[in-house]
Amino acid sequence: MNDLSFDEKVAELRRRHEALVTAPNPVDDSFYNGIYTRYQNPVVTGDHAPVEWEYDLNPETNPYLQVRSGVNSAFNPGAIYFDGKYVLAVRCEGIDRKSFFALAESESGTEGFRFRSKPIQIPDNLGNPDVNLYDMRLVQHEDGWIYGIFCTERKDKSAPSEDMSAAEAQCGLVRTKDLDTWERLPDIVTHSPQQRNVVLHPKLVNGQYAFYTRPQDGFISTGKGGGIGWATCDDIENPVLGEESIVDFRAYHTVKELKNGQGPAPIETDKGWLHLCHGVRTTADGFRYTLYLIVTDLDDPTKVIAAPGGHFIAPYEAERVGDCGNVTFANGWVARENGDVFIYYASSDTRCHVATSTVGQLLDYAFNTPADGGRTFECVAQRLDLIERNEAYLSSQQSVLV
Amino acid sequence: MNDLSFDEKVAELRRRHEALVTAPNPVDDSFYNGIYTRYQNPVVTGDHAPVEWEYDLNPETNPYLQVRSGVNSAFNPGAIYFDGKYVLAVRCEGIDRKSFFALAESESGTEGFRFRSKPIQIPDNLGNPDVNLYDMRLVQHEDGWIYGIFCTERKDKSAPSEDMSAAEAQCGLVRTKDLDTWERLPDIVTHSPQQRNVVLHPKLVNGQYAFYTRPQDGFISTGKGGGIGWATCDDIENPVLGEESIVDFRAYHTVKELKNGQGPAPIETDKGWLHLCHGVRTTADGFRYTLYLIVTDLDDPTKVIAAPGGHFIAPYEAERVGDCGNVTFANGWVARENGDVFIYYASSDTRCHVATSTVGQLLDYAFNTPADGGRTFECVAQRLDLIERNEAYLSSQQSVLV
Repeated sequence: MNDLSFDEKVAELRRRHEALVTAPNPVDDSFYNGIYTRYQNPVVTGDHAPVEWEYDLNPETNPYLQVRSGVNSAFNPGAIYFDGKYVLAVRCEGIDRKSFFALAESESGTEGFRFRSKPIQIPDNLGNPDVNLYDMRLVQHEDGWIYGIFCTERKDKSAPSEDMSAAEAQCGLVRTKDLDTWERLPDIVTHSPQQRNVVLHPKLVNGQYAFYTRPQDGFISTGKGGGIGWATCDDIENPVLGEESIVDFRAYHTVKELKNGQGPAPIETDKGWLHLCHGVRTTADGFRYTLYLIVTDLDDPTKVIAAPGGHFIAPYEAERVGDCGNVTFANGWVARENGDVFIYYASSDTRCHVATSTVGQLLDYAFNTPADGGRTFECVAQRLDLIERNEAYLSSQQSVLV
Repeated sequence: MNDLSFDEKVAELRRRHEALVTAPNPVDDSFYNGIYTRYQNPVVTGDHAPVEWEYDLNPETNPYLQVRSGVNSAFNPGAIYFDGKYVLAVRCEGIDRKSFFALAESESGTEGFRFRSKPIQIPDNLGNPDVNLYDMRLVQHEDGWIYGIFCTERKDKSAPSEDMSAAEAQCGLVRTKDLDTWERLPDIVTHSPQQRNVVLHPKLVNGQYAFYTRPQDGFISTGKGGGIGWATCDDIENPVLGEESIVDFRAYHTVKELKNGQGPAPIETDKGWLHLCHGVRTTADGFRYTLYLIVTDLDDPTKVIAAPGGHFIAPYEAERVGDCGNVTFANGWVARENGDVFIYYASSDTRCHVATSTVGQLLDYAFNTPADGGRTFECVAQRLDLIERNEAYLSSQQSVLV
C-alpha cells in the first residue's frame, strides 16, 4: 500500500472493502450440536464500515489518506426482517469509544451484509443529554410501529468527581415505520436506579405496553436487582413503568449467577414465548457472558415454562478474544414464517455473528434439555441416566439387528 | 530435540535462536490506516534471550540441558538511536516475575534486534532496596547525559501483612553517556504517594529539569490523581520535584477514563511537542490499555494544542493476548532527522513491536483528526459531516470527469 498513489490507495481500500462485504460465509461444518448451525465468518465487523465513513477522500485535505474517523468495532446488533431483507441495527463503536447505530442489510441473512450509506443520528435528548447509546433491540409491535429500545448512558453525577468510570444507564426509545425516520420518545422511567437490557414485548398485554427490564442498583452491579424483570405502562409516549416483577431470577452457580438480561424480544410459538437471554458469571479473568434460552407461557409471559440448563451459545474459538473478551451477547434475532430462526450475536464486544436454527429445533432444545440440576450430584445423576438410557437403547437395537 | 545429544541440542538451540534473531520482518500490508505501518512480527520477544542467559551449557552441571534461568517475556522497551543503531532498553521478565533491563540493538530499527551479551545491572538502591524495576524511558537530555527513568517498586509496608499484593511504585533514575556504565541517582521525590510513568523532558525549561509524572494514590488506582502531571526541579542529582500540575486530564467515556500516562519523552517538531501516551479504561473483562497522541506547545509543554479523539494504537489480532491481555503500552520511540519515526510498543505485557511513521504523518493525524466529541450525538455529527464532504468531493470529481 505504501508505494501506491493516493488514487491507487483509494481504489485498493475500496477493493478490499468490497471483497470483505461480498465474501461468502460458508457453514462451519466442523461444529455440530443439532441445535443451531455456526458459520465460518463474522457477518459484520468494524472493517465493514464504508471507506467514506473513515477516510477523507479529498487529497487536498487528507494528503496521506489517513483514517479520520475510525470504526473500531461493530457488535450487539438488533435485528428485523424488513422489506425482503435481514436488517441489523449494529452497535458501531468509533475509536473514540462512542457507540452509534448503523443499519446493515443482507438478502440471505448469513452473508453479504452491507451498511446503508450513513449511520443513524438518533435525535438528541435535549433535556438530559446522553453520552453513549448502544445495544438497540428492534421490535415490530402489534401497534404498527417498529420500536428501537436502547441503552442511554451518562456520567453518574452523584459519584465522587475522581471516579471517571461511574456512569448511569437508562433506557432510551425511538420508533419508526420505515427504518429511515426515527422519532425519539421520552426515556423510560422505572422504579430502579438504573436499567439496561430493556426490551419491549411485541404485543399488548391486558391492553398495556409490556417491557422486560433489568433493574440494577449501579452501572455494573445489579445489586439487589434480581434478574429479568417485567413492568408495564399505559402510554408508550409517556413510558413510566409500574412496579417490576422478576420473570427469571439470577441464581448461584449457574450461567446467570452475577447478572442476566433479556436479549431480543421473544418469538411467539405455539408452545410459548421463546426467549434468548444472556447470563454473566465471574471468573479470575473477569466476567464471562453466555447466552441461554427460556420459554414463557403464551398467555402469561411472566411465567417460565421451560428452562434448559446451562448456556445455549458461549464464546467459541476466535470469538473468545476481543475488546472485552469471553463475551457472547445477543439482542437481535429473526424468526421467519417458515420457522427459520436467524440468531445474531456478538463476540467479545468486537464483531457480529449469525447462528441459524428453526423454531422446531429451539423448542425441542428448550423442553428436552435437562434443567440445571443445581448440584454436581444431581447433574451426574442426569448424565448417568442418559448414558444408561443410551446403553439400553443401543443394546435393544443390537438385538433387533441380531 | 529429545533424541539429540547434548552438543547437538546446544547447536540446535543456537540455530533456532539465530533464525529468530535474523528473521526478516516484512510490512503487514493487510493493515492500512495512513497513519503508521505495522509489521508482521514482534521485534523482540523472550525467545530473543541468548542461549547463554537461560541454559547452563556445561554438561556436567546441566546433564539434561535444562533452562536454569528462563526469560518469560520481553516488553515495554525504552528506545534511543545511538552510535548508528536503534537501541531498545527492553523490560525482560524472568520466569520469577522479576523484571530487568537489557539492551537490544538493530541496524534497521524494524528487524534484526539482538541483545547485547549481558543484561544491565542497575546499581542497587542501598538505603531503601527496591524489589522490581521496569519500564525504562531513555532520554537524551540537552545536558549531555542519557537518562534512564524507570519504575521502582517495593512492598507497601503500610498495608495489612496478609495483603501480599500491596505495593508502592516510585520513580528511579540512572544516567549514562555510553549505554555501558550506569550511574544511579536518588529516586525522584514528589508530593504524590506513588508515581509511575515518570518521564524526563529532553530540554531544560526555565533552567529547570522538567518531568512528566503520573500522580496516584495507590499502586493500581490513581485515586484523585488526575492525569499526566508536570513538575520540575533545579538539581537532577537531588530530584525533589515541586508541585505537580496536570497537563492531560483523565476523562469519562474516553480511552483514558481510568488512567493515563506519558509514554516516551516527547518529540520536538516545528508544530509542537509530539507526545505518545497510554490510556486505560475498564471493561467487564479487565483493563484495556491503548495508546493515544497529543501535541503540546513548543514554548509551554504543559499546554495541549492538539488532541485527536480516540486511540492511536490498540491491541490488534495476536497482540490482544498475553500475560496481561488487551494491552498496548509504549515507552520508547525514535525520531530520525529525516522525519522517520519508529514507535516501539509492547503487546499484552509479553512482546515488543514496531510501527513506523513520519513526523509529517503524525502531525497531520494529530491536528486533523476530530477531537473526541464527548457524546454519541456529536460523534455521529462529525461522521456525517465527513461522509457529506466525501459525497460533495466525489460528485465534484465526477463532474470534472464528465
